[in-house]
Amino acid sequence: MESRAGLAAAPRALPYYVAFSQLLGLTVVAMTGAWLGLYRGGIAWEGALQFNAHPLCMVIGLIFLQGDALLVYRVFRNEPRRTTKVLHGLLHVFAFIIALVGMVAVFDYHREQGYADLYSLHSWCGILGFVLYFVQWLVGFSLFLFPGAAFSLRSRYRPQHIFFGAAIFLLSVGTALLGLKEALLFKLGARYSTFEAEGVLANVLGLLLVGFGGTVLYILTRPDWKRPPQAEEQALSMDFKTLTEGDSPSSQ
Amino acid sequence: MESRAGLAAAPRALPYYVAFSQLLGLTVVAMTGAWLGLYRGGIAWEGALQFNAHPLCMVIGLIFLQGDALLVYRVFRNEPRRTTKVLHGLLHVFAFIIALVGMVAVFDYHREQGYADLYSLHSWCGILGFVLYFVQWLVGFSLFLFPGAAFSLRSRYRPQHIFFGAAIFLLSVGTALLGLKEALLFKLGARYSTFEAEGVLANVLGLLLVGFGGTVLYILTRPDWKRPPQAEEQALSMDFKTLTEGDSPSSQ
Repeated sequence: MESRAGLAAAPRALPYYVAFSQLLGLTVVAMTGAWLGLYRGGIAWEGALQFNAHPLCMVIGLIFLQGDALLVYRVFRNEPRRTTKVLHGLLHVFAFIIALVGMVAVFDYHREQGYADLYSLHSWCGILGFVLYFVQWLVGFSLFLFPGAAFSLRSRYRPQHIFFGAAIFLLSVGTALLGLKEALLFKLGARYSTFEAEGVLANVLGLLLVGFGGTVLYILTRPDWKRPPQAEEQALSMDFKTLTEGDSPSSQ
Repeated sequence: MESRAGLAAAPRALPYYVAFSQLLGLTVVAMTGAWLGLYRGGIAWEGALQFNAHPLCMVIGLIFLQGDALLVYRVFRNEPRRTTKVLHGLLHVFAFIIALVGMVAVFDYHREQGYADLYSLHSWCGILGFVLYFVQWLVGFSLFLFPGAAFSLRSRYRPQHIFFGAAIFLLSVGTALLGLKEALLFKLGARYSTFEAEGVLANVLGLLLVGFGGTVLYILTRPDWKRPPQAEEQALSMDFKTLTEGDSPSSQ
């Protein structure tokens, strides 16, 4: 199902889908900020407002930046693979650091207020996703960016890396929905059912999160939108080689 | 990335993954039943217990049966495509009917108790998923099971059908997590943070739901586990033909 359009031309519809995903992603970030500003008193690093740093950081890091890191190979189709790879790794580093700040915010807040940690399904899914994200980054860095990993190992691991990348991203979206719901129910309680403005805004934010996750997944999984292998890569490294071709250098 | 193992042999690891998915899926159904029985007073079609039919029906229909319907093409690799297709369609019919009973249960319960409908993120995601599921079934039936649909139309639609099938399944898993969380917070409130038995059991159920969704997605997306095209199919229909081959009958 490789595109027949050749190495240079991007699939015609791809840019529109990427633009749409960015519009959704930026709206999600802006709307999270608006929700926290309008209904939760804004953000601070001290006191009760420290909690609010958590949703904002997680949405910027583990939703928007993580999603965009996955799209790098679809957007930069003709840049050298090494450049694309470094950008992919860097976006994930930024995502991880911002998410880490978000994690510190909520643990700090819980400690200050005397709340229990890690009792909810949101927190269990969150810790699972965060640990998987870190492990995925470490293994990805060791095998794909650090020089010296065997080509056969890279080829065998690549499909797992791609699957777990998408799965961890989707788990992050699901965890964000759980967190949003938790925040709404804790504050609104039965008032949630009266269609209060905050509840409706948060529901719309939830649907936009689902939309962003779905659009990124669609772009990632369209077989004819996959990055075509480049002649230059064949000389630079053998890591484009598919599993079935194994380690044999016959196609060089 | 098609498997070189030929038409007859199934990939060696596939049966273990399928068995694991079924173990997870059945545990999810059993644990939902146990949760409702142990902590929610069981199930009835009248009164307050009518609500409990909702989570059980949705988990059996839109999680377990929907997931299994997606796996049909991986499990039945050598049966005629028509048989596999009918089984895929039938499992989705059962899933839809059971889910419909679950939907009626919650609307009925809300009406009896005077609660508002469709105010929460869970319900918005649920309605979105249910409508998409119904539309996907109708379009899938019209194009793939109803005779007479043009081969070219089938080939163009197939990738969309596969993507939306997986996306709707994942949305169903996410919606189930939101519903579980909602049920916990409404009943337990602040007691959720004291690691009450019901909360811990429901969190484990949530992680198992995530595990079932992830395992089904992994089986579906392994390129070398895709169903190989069969010689017989080429005579029966052209619907195995890929997008890139278009409508030309040259390979017959």
